[in-house]
Amino acid sequence: MPITSPHNDKLKEIRRLQRRREGRFVAEGEDLLAAAAAAGWKPVYTLRAGEDVEPALLDGVSALGSGTRVVGVFEARFAERAIGPLCVYLHGVKDPGNVGTVLRSALAFGAGSVVLGPDCADAFGPKAVRASMGAIFSVPVLRGELGDAPGEKVALVAREGDPLRATGSSSEVTIVVGAERDGLPVDVVAACDRVAHIPIASESLNAAMAATVALYELARVPETGT
Amino acid sequence: MPITSPHNDKLKEIRRLQRRREGRFVAEGEDLLAAAAAAGWKPVYTLRAGEDVEPALLDGVSALGSGTRVVGVFEARFAERAIGPLCVYLHGVKDPGNVGTVLRSALAFGAGSVVLGPDCADAFGPKAVRASMGAIFSVPVLRGELGDAPGEKVALVAREGDPLRATGSSSEVTIVVGAERDGLPVDVVAACDRVAHIPIASESLNAAMAATVALYELARVPETGT
Repeated sequence: MPITSPHNDKLKEIRRLQRRREGRFVAEGEDLLAAAAAAGWKPVYTLRAGEDVEPALLDGVSALGSGTRVVGVFEARFAERAIGPLCVYLHGVKDPGNVGTVLRSALAFGAGSVVLGPDCADAFGPKAVRASMGAIFSVPVLRGELGDAPGEKVALVAREGDPLRATGSSSEVTIVVGAERDGLPVDVVAACDRVAHIPIASESLNAAMAATVALYELARVPETGT
Repeated sequence: MPITSPHNDKLKEIRRLQRRREGRFVAEGEDLLAAAAAAGWKPVYTLRAGEDVEPALLDGVSALGSGTRVVGVFEARFAERAIGPLCVYLHGVKDPGNVGTVLRSALAFGAGSVVLGPDCADAFGPKAVRASMGAIFSVPVLRGELGDAPGEKVALVAREGDPLRATGSSSEVTIVVGAERDGLPVDVVAACDRVAHIPIASESLNAAMAATVALYELARVPETGT
């Protein structure tokens, strides 16, 4: 029997989770659910339009402007520790789209984990989950402090330090990225092992683009095949 | 005399321009207006909260959730031709945030212009202007076709062609980037001079990330000083 009442408990939970996470979070759309399944995440439940719920009711709890055909509710899972050899530490990155994009780049460039420091957006919020394009299910993410991140800590600071370059060393490295406007606090920079910048001709990049370029530079994903 | 009526003609125009551009467009906030001034753009008019208009009325026409202290209305300006030596051509990039982010990266990595092909979001729409962080005022942008873009056309296609690498040649190059989901149409790829990909371990990057990494790789902004 499909759900026909907007007062259904699952619909009420989804509406609530779209506003704030409570241990569980929402992923909308076939692509995200496929990414979850591929990464071995089982939803607590899914609701499919027409099967489990009247389409208009599912659209009513969707965070997407265009509505949705399927919604899954999952238990959030934080990693217990940060994993290298390549890691990203974010400090004060409040925009959930940027946090999700960093997760996506971390997956693309083979980072082992992402550590969310103080004042970062919730990685399991609907906008971050969507921007991650499913990377939230594959990249270990944790809330922590700089000291939790592995290896050499490289602070990205506009126009300071050396231009960021792959060193070719095989040691662990964590890219440390701050808020778009305020950058990294002085004490966080001081606690890093070195400072580097991405050479640009303008004032700044956004936090997600800076992290993406840094991951690209330091990762150099090995080519498979010829 | 500050504006005290929501029916004021300027407020009505701003409300309309937040939905669709009509030759003019809106830029909100001190940062964007400073970027416009630095690039030599004069607004048709600005409205400052408390000076020109009651703050609540300006908040009422703001596209920002948090309201705004100043809004400027500008005449949109398209460039007459694409300028190299580094250029980005976008095809079917519908997300205005991605278009704005590409403009910002184009400025950061010294691209001469951005060409918007078919089915791209409006570069002068409020979301694109905001994501550009003012780059819309500095980077020449035009609507055009692939043939309008300068130099060697390099199609970015996931997992095809060679890994994108800076060639060190001084010739002109245009990075050709398609829609996130559909990629570049076959005929656009065929019309390009070569195909390259960004080596990644996952399925895909979004259009703005791909363009940003490609700009970084091909630009290598020269360091000033030591």
